[in-house]
Amino acid sequence: MTDPRLTPLAASLPATVPFVGPETQERAAGAAFRARLGANESVFGPSPTAIEAMQRAAAEAWMYPDPESHDLRQALAAHVGVGAENIVIGAGIDGLLGSLVRLTVAAGDPVVTSDGAYPTFNYHVTGYGGRLHRVPYRDDHEDPDALIEAARETGARLIYLSNPDNPMGTWHQAERIARMIEDLPDGCLLILDEAYLECSDADTSPRINTSDPRVIRMRTFSKAYGLAGCRVGYAIGDEALIGAFGRVRNHFGLSRVSQAGALAALSDEPYLREVQAKIATARDRIAGIGAENGLTALPSATNFVALDLGGDGARTRAVLDALTKARVFTRMPGVAPLDRCLRVSCGTPADLDILAEALPQALNQGRISGLT
Amino acid sequence: MTDPRLTPLAASLPATVPFVGPETQERAAGAAFRARLGANESVFGPSPTAIEAMQRAAAEAWMYPDPESHDLRQALAAHVGVGAENIVIGAGIDGLLGSLVRLTVAAGDPVVTSDGAYPTFNYHVTGYGGRLHRVPYRDDHEDPDALIEAARETGARLIYLSNPDNPMGTWHQAERIARMIEDLPDGCLLILDEAYLECSDADTSPRINTSDPRVIRMRTFSKAYGLAGCRVGYAIGDEALIGAFGRVRNHFGLSRVSQAGALAALSDEPYLREVQAKIATARDRIAGIGAENGLTALPSATNFVALDLGGDGARTRAVLDALTKARVFTRMPGVAPLDRCLRVSCGTPADLDILAEALPQALNQGRISGLT
Repeated sequence: MTDPRLTPLAASLPATVPFVGPETQERAAGAAFRARLGANESVFGPSPTAIEAMQRAAAEAWMYPDPESHDLRQALAAHVGVGAENIVIGAGIDGLLGSLVRLTVAAGDPVVTSDGAYPTFNYHVTGYGGRLHRVPYRDDHEDPDALIEAARETGARLIYLSNPDNPMGTWHQAERIARMIEDLPDGCLLILDEAYLECSDADTSPRINTSDPRVIRMRTFSKAYGLAGCRVGYAIGDEALIGAFGRVRNHFGLSRVSQAGALAALSDEPYLREVQAKIATARDRIAGIGAENGLTALPSATNFVALDLGGDGARTRAVLDALTKARVFTRMPGVAPLDRCLRVSCGTPADLDILAEALPQALNQGRISGLT
Repeated sequence: MTDPRLTPLAASLPATVPFVGPETQERAAGAAFRARLGANESVFGPSPTAIEAMQRAAAEAWMYPDPESHDLRQALAAHVGVGAENIVIGAGIDGLLGSLVRLTVAAGDPVVTSDGAYPTFNYHVTGYGGRLHRVPYRDDHEDPDALIEAARETGARLIYLSNPDNPMGTWHQAERIARMIEDLPDGCLLILDEAYLECSDADTSPRINTSDPRVIRMRTFSKAYGLAGCRVGYAIGDEALIGAFGRVRNHFGLSRVSQAGALAALSDEPYLREVQAKIATARDRIAGIGAENGLTALPSATNFVALDLGGDGARTRAVLDALTKARVFTRMPGVAPLDRCLRVSCGTPADLDILAEALPQALNQGRISGLT
């Protein structure tokens, strides 16, 4: 029965969640994961400088946060090379995507994304009544031409593209994305999700032009900066669009401790470089563990690796479930043909030792399951 | 010119913010406040246990937060005496109000509040295209009868009531609110904002009945618990309505550090009682400082006191501005006749010494300003 207190749109929404967290799985199993390799977190942790800044800020947590996030915004503006008026900070890219969809998508408006791309974006589009059009990946990459064509056909207000890509780890060169921007149909805004930007030295990010109203970038402290628990993302765009967030966002929504942590993390570039090296080493190790088991690793510019198990989604699911039983947390893409892959986040050497030990038996389980 | 990228609703929204933060004023003045008595924060700080919990959690900030806030929700359920399915946690009451309005108010839907009550609620209603109907306070109290009548006349979907009240500090007895609930028109939901519940021992909160679909409560760790910087609020209601938040909320929106801090704060009841005693002492002191200056203090069940300056809003504004110049941060209600009052948050004895020193001259400035 429909709850009469809800709006027609709210009443029509499904009760799904974009992701089930590892803690939920741990509670269900009554046992902790031995290796946490499913959420593309940075197991290497945040900069010690950031930890100290958060610890200091904790004692001042009685004060509301600065709703303008002034200091962090100024530092990001300098870091990115834009004005502070071109940056808005939010509760992770998730929170910013929600605000952006709210600002730009009215009920029934068409939106284009790739089939298998970030579920939380789809959650927000559905949540505001938008109509999602999905185009397939091409050779495990998001397909700029197909996205543009679908936007043209549907009159889409938004295109979502992550580069480097989640969940496959693949990427396009900056120059390819720059061309895509030139091809955008009139009135269509490109959301360029660069969450994994700092995870490799691949040349993925076209030059930012804040006078170009066709693109908004999303970046985060959740990946290479190791602050997923703090929920700090930021968007970069033209002043008019960035300013519009101020009409709808939760102005006092960003924890004071999180702001302090992000500011300190941003300033510790040597630590970021250390993490980048550890990510690269871990990617190679995951590929190596895959190879030992006869699996191909997709090339990755992120902090995770998609291992091609060569079967269908049911097969991957069986392997993933076996890993979960062995207390190794991983995830997999939600749709075919991407779902032939297991997505493994970068871990410490100890984490990856556990993966190396558990994977052969899990693959065996997957084979048995595939036969029945 | 309207930005063609925005929805018609988004394009129509004003660029106002509900509150300007003290940091913004400090940056403008180039000087810090000597006493921070404007935002009803708890200057007494969070429990040392909470600070320690946050400091430990800071090192684990690389992990995404538990999107179910399981541990905190269980603890709150036990604390409140309801089921965990009756509680949803969000980024402060502000964040929860936004989600609730989104769930219940479609464009054009009528909503009722008091004229001068919480601006952030109004911000959300406007933001989702709702039509606000405001009824006057009666004798510096929100007026349950008038709210009910306005809801009946307009067919309102929501009534907002804070008890104890912000910005006046006044309150209704629990029994009065219970009667109001019985009078609610069919299909109208009462938002009972109990942010200041823990700030006094006044009997303000009617018994919670989670099978009653007519009421949703909002509570927070921002006031007596001293965690305004962490952004943790919670709503209590029937399972269907609480469950509906899961369809729209930012599931990974609540910082891991904040969750740890709130959980620890909730467990430290002796500290809460200490703070309650300090709040009572500070309220008396503020009233005393008022009396020394010939001002009446409104009775308060909150962590602030409304001092009646006996003039109009321009007079209060002049006094407030003079206090700001003296580096004392206070606020005032936004509309007449409430705006004859200056709202002063509870402070430490040192904070209130500064107020006592600065107030006479500020009042003098206000009198001069009133003469011109």
